[in-house]
Amino acid sequence: MQTHAFAAFEARARALDAADPLAWSKAEFHHPEGLIYLDGNSLGLLPKAAVARMVDVMQREWGEGLIASWNTAGWFTRSLALGDRLGKLIGAAPGQVAVGDSTSLNVFKAICAALGLRPGRRKIVSEASNFPTDIYMMDGAAQLYPGHEVKLAGRDGSLEDLIDEDTALVALTQVDFRSGRIHDMAALTKRAHEAGALVMWDLAHSAGAIEVDLDGCEADFAVGCTYKYLNAGPGGPAFIYCARRHLKEARHPLIGWIGHADPFAFSVGFEPAHDMRRFLSGTPVVLSFAPLEASLDIWEKVDMAELRRKSLSLTGLFIDMVDQFASRHGLALATPREERLRGSQVSWSHPEGFAIMKALIADKVVGDFRAPDILRFGFTPLTLSHADVVEAVRRFERILESGAWRAYGAGREGGALVT
Amino acid sequence: MQTHAFAAFEARARALDAADPLAWSKAEFHHPEGLIYLDGNSLGLLPKAAVARMVDVMQREWGEGLIASWNTAGWFTRSLALGDRLGKLIGAAPGQVAVGDSTSLNVFKAICAALGLRPGRRKIVSEASNFPTDIYMMDGAAQLYPGHEVKLAGRDGSLEDLIDEDTALVALTQVDFRSGRIHDMAALTKRAHEAGALVMWDLAHSAGAIEVDLDGCEADFAVGCTYKYLNAGPGGPAFIYCARRHLKEARHPLIGWIGHADPFAFSVGFEPAHDMRRFLSGTPVVLSFAPLEASLDIWEKVDMAELRRKSLSLTGLFIDMVDQFASRHGLALATPREERLRGSQVSWSHPEGFAIMKALIADKVVGDFRAPDILRFGFTPLTLSHADVVEAVRRFERILESGAWRAYGAGREGGALVT
Repeated sequence: MQTHAFAAFEARARALDAADPLAWSKAEFHHPEGLIYLDGNSLGLLPKAAVARMVDVMQREWGEGLIASWNTAGWFTRSLALGDRLGKLIGAAPGQVAVGDSTSLNVFKAICAALGLRPGRRKIVSEASNFPTDIYMMDGAAQLYPGHEVKLAGRDGSLEDLIDEDTALVALTQVDFRSGRIHDMAALTKRAHEAGALVMWDLAHSAGAIEVDLDGCEADFAVGCTYKYLNAGPGGPAFIYCARRHLKEARHPLIGWIGHADPFAFSVGFEPAHDMRRFLSGTPVVLSFAPLEASLDIWEKVDMAELRRKSLSLTGLFIDMVDQFASRHGLALATPREERLRGSQVSWSHPEGFAIMKALIADKVVGDFRAPDILRFGFTPLTLSHADVVEAVRRFERILESGAWRAYGAGREGGALVT
Repeated sequence: MQTHAFAAFEARARALDAADPLAWSKAEFHHPEGLIYLDGNSLGLLPKAAVARMVDVMQREWGEGLIASWNTAGWFTRSLALGDRLGKLIGAAPGQVAVGDSTSLNVFKAICAALGLRPGRRKIVSEASNFPTDIYMMDGAAQLYPGHEVKLAGRDGSLEDLIDEDTALVALTQVDFRSGRIHDMAALTKRAHEAGALVMWDLAHSAGAIEVDLDGCEADFAVGCTYKYLNAGPGGPAFIYCARRHLKEARHPLIGWIGHADPFAFSVGFEPAHDMRRFLSGTPVVLSFAPLEASLDIWEKVDMAELRRKSLSLTGLFIDMVDQFASRHGLALATPREERLRGSQVSWSHPEGFAIMKALIADKVVGDFRAPDILRFGFTPLTLSHADVVEAVRRFERILESGAWRAYGAGREGGALVT
């Protein structure tokens, strides 16, 4: 772009960074030298304090405390203690969130619980564009409940038309993983409830990315992961939310010993715990909790309204800058321009997106690629400055202007996981 | 016991330790000062190398490698690579074991896969004494498969009588978690197969404890955990085994994205991976894999026949010594005397078992208690010497002789988790 235009963006970034109330948090994370990491929506950066916390859990709690740590170190209650802390980031009052298992499995549990709460209704409604694992789990569950079926907006009709008096559950991901478009949680929850259905929100790209108000929206169930915006590390534990009003009646079939009302009675008959522990299936993944604890120590100091403002300011700056050369290079914005509809990511489509992203990564700007043609850039407000955005765009433009990306397999079919 | 009798046991222990081919391994683990830990069958000791391995995974693979580590560090294939390594300890040729999720969830998946392979048969046969989570998961699955039911030996009839032409699956834990009694895997598998049923073996108290030959016994499915004898830490990942002959047809409903044939295609329809990855449901718990890697580095040097010999020699010494004063103090052996039937633990029943175990733990001999009256002592051959056994018995006898245990809530109803 024109030198003066670039200089104006640099000045805007400098002013934004100088006024950024979240500027302190970047130093809480490990940043590989020279790397601009725009893939924290896939795997978040390592919180510096996570290593020490993990070593403490391993050496003191496990190595020294051994089996006694189930009580003395609070392993047994950690899933729910972390759930309450995490709940603050998603508008959930205490007692409604449990941390554990994987998002996929928690989707399954929430679906089954919802079907149990809406007997006689036989439709699970979602979207064809939903994250596939959610759809797979719906299919897996529907196979087990005779007569039930999964209906997908974009394949079987519109969302509006599919939600009716035969719908047990509307299961949606709040922020689309490809486009970053935000669903209106309050309005869609209301729409589902008017039809007598329940809702399950997948917050994979919401938790730590945007303001979420589960309680305020009267959501029924929600699930999400901690390894994206919440920086809990690869394969970090997932979470599940069940609104307090459903807790007593909500049942699912993945009943493991840890979800029993009295797990150490080792009794033959299952009686679910009276709290969110009933949603846990297996032994808590204690070690994997450690990075989440370190991360939540950081998140505790974050005001979510400030986070959202910074997120929009980062993505807005990125869009405005790339707009300067997008059409000349065949890039089309795949993310809503309207702030209200935009999550904390920006996606551009380009037929040679795979090669372009490979070139960008080689130039140390890491985003990722989603088939068929989406260049996806995640903006994690705690770990990025506006200056990072400017530098990323500078390299992005250089790669497009020079055609350097053509060396990276132009015209080749792209895989999704770019390295 | 008589001084000369004790001295004779001490001499026996010295000779056994001097000739122990596994004596080297004790130093590979962290031992809390002065503690004799006989609860490695609940949570194994920390391998010293596990901390460094974890720090490396966190700092280099996660912190520096970030998202690229899915490929460059092999995160994506680690579940199966670890499965192949673990398979060597349980008689499983490569390609039949996946590491991930929890034992409870893997039980569920194996049950569902077995039911799918035996359509028309409606019985799941197990034992009332099985570990409760296995029974809960059977109940959970049976609720989802119309007409199916769980039949428990010891409640609904004998195991022999319950296995018939309507039996889809015989699901047993090989080593009983209370008594330590070993089932004859080869014979029971044969019996199930003769009736046309499949078998699933829970190896929670077998893997790393006794010799297991899944392939040789022609087992169909198996599951187990890594945090007991395999020392992978609290909430360490579980494993699942599916015999190669079933792999192509084995399906389960917990279908997550990572089990898809092409997970990064993000397609709407689920097609299972052609290998054991189809049994994985959620994103692999990469951090929790690290201690297991360190542990398997130790296990790789262990000959399982030698392990079994040492296990029997440790448990045999313990039984012989406690026998000297057992009847005088009301202890009854709850574990088979016959070596062939004995796992790597020794249980004694005593009406005041809870208080006695609390006193023992206060005296730094850590076993555990299982309701209603079982004092349970686990003998992990890699982390214990015969001298440890002698010292443990010395303290055990002292507590009984002195009546010191009466200070620990004698006559009180005992919980199961003793601290």
